Amino acid sequence: MHTAPPIFYSYFRASAPYRVRIALALKNITYETVSVDLRQNDQHNLAYQRVNPQALVPSLHIDGQILTQSLAIIEWLEDCYPDPPLLPSSPHDRAFVRSLALTIACDIHPLNNLRVQRYLTQNFDAQPKACQSWQQHWIMLGLHSLETRLKDDLRRGDFCYGNSPGLVETCLIPQWRNAEIQGCDLGGLPILGGIVKRALALPAFIKAHPDLQPDYVPSP
Amino acid sequence: MHTAPPIFYSYFRASAPYRVRIALALKNITYETVSVDLRQNDQHNLAYQRVNPQALVPSLHIDGQILTQSLAIIEWLEDCYPDPPLLPSSPHDRAFVRSLALTIACDIHPLNNLRVQRYLTQNFDAQPKACQSWQQHWIMLGLHSLETRLKDDLRRGDFCYGNSPGLVETCLIPQWRNAEIQGCDLGGLPILGGIVKRALALPAFIKAHPDLQPDYVPSP
Repeated sequence: MHTAPPIFYSYFRASAPYRVRIALALKNITYETVSVDLRQNDQHNLAYQRVNPQALVPSLHIDGQILTQSLAIIEWLEDCYPDPPLLPSSPHDRAFVRSLALTIACDIHPLNNLRVQRYLTQNFDAQPKACQSWQQHWIMLGLHSLETRLKDDLRRGDFCYGNSPGLVETCLIPQWRNAEIQGCDLGGLPILGGIVKRALALPAFIKAHPDLQPDYVPSP
Repeated sequence: MHTAPPIFYSYFRASAPYRVRIALALKNITYETVSVDLRQNDQHNLAYQRVNPQALVPSLHIDGQILTQSLAIIEWLEDCYPDPPLLPSSPHDRAFVRSLALTIACDIHPLNNLRVQRYLTQNFDAQPKACQSWQQHWIMLGLHSLETRLKDDLRRGDFCYGNSPGLVETCLIPQWRNAEIQGCDLGGLPILGGIVKRALALPAFIKAHPDLQPDYVPSP
């Protein structure tokens, strides 16, 4: 069908590309990775600006189109490669799953981006400890609300919705990793913790892990 | 079909409920408004926490379910009330529209929330002028990238996609209003400005405007 393999503009450390890597792996879609090193400001290179004027990762070049925004890409994958499904079939349950995913994608992650940390440091003279408190604050606020919503929801199974990972897990697992890196105390989140543990044991999540990406370099 | 009208938990000033009000109005769905006054911290009342553990607006009580997260609610409306459509039918074009909407919902708006301003003021001793610069920075970064993406895209018409307002406009019009309130210089965004002007003249956008909501109070 495809004459050329999809090209995925990614950065191993960043959590939005990690979401899409999980979705691509769950749907068994092969692709080539082009690394956009955010620490080196590669996203501001003129060549990449033409791919994605927002200067963010990920971007996916597939079927002659460039797709951007991780959740829009995953919804596109769901439209075009429906098997296995990452969203439920009933509208109510789709809204539930999308709402959980958006809690991470809108209310946690955007506040913890590298560009935001840089702004806090440069413009508010934020020290590393204050930056870490900022990160922990928004992460824990969001994750606790997810834990509460999942606690008594009968739709929950081994994963946030039923017994297969889906859209929420594509967002949760990268966010959980950030929470660990930021030293969050995750002990009070047993439901989410169990889901993360089960997901990380699956081949698709192993394949998508930052440490296994072609542009991976160990932390200094 | 519905025995009781939908209940919409809203706050006239907030931009996420404004998005959903536009979608409800475009789809001609009637509802009752319950105001959650974010300035008075009503979102932390125990009664509202049971509606929405995330303590954010909007929430929509409809068909015996409570839906949260503005974009998840709008996608639900699209699933259940497909006419008029707010998303295109082709997967590629859906991804384009979702990507533009997510640029606002993920990369602009979460950084400009009231709760974020409060954190900056309380924890980084940010003065009003520095808060305003923060707001303007993220708003202009996002809006300029949207303007660039729309400039040469043949899918653009009177609106971001074609000649009818859709998902992008539900996000853009509230965001544009925030930009004006924050004193952003919007003169360099003629494409977006034209789209906003055309949208604001339509009955659904007039009906959804903050100043016409039952909980509206004039700014002091």
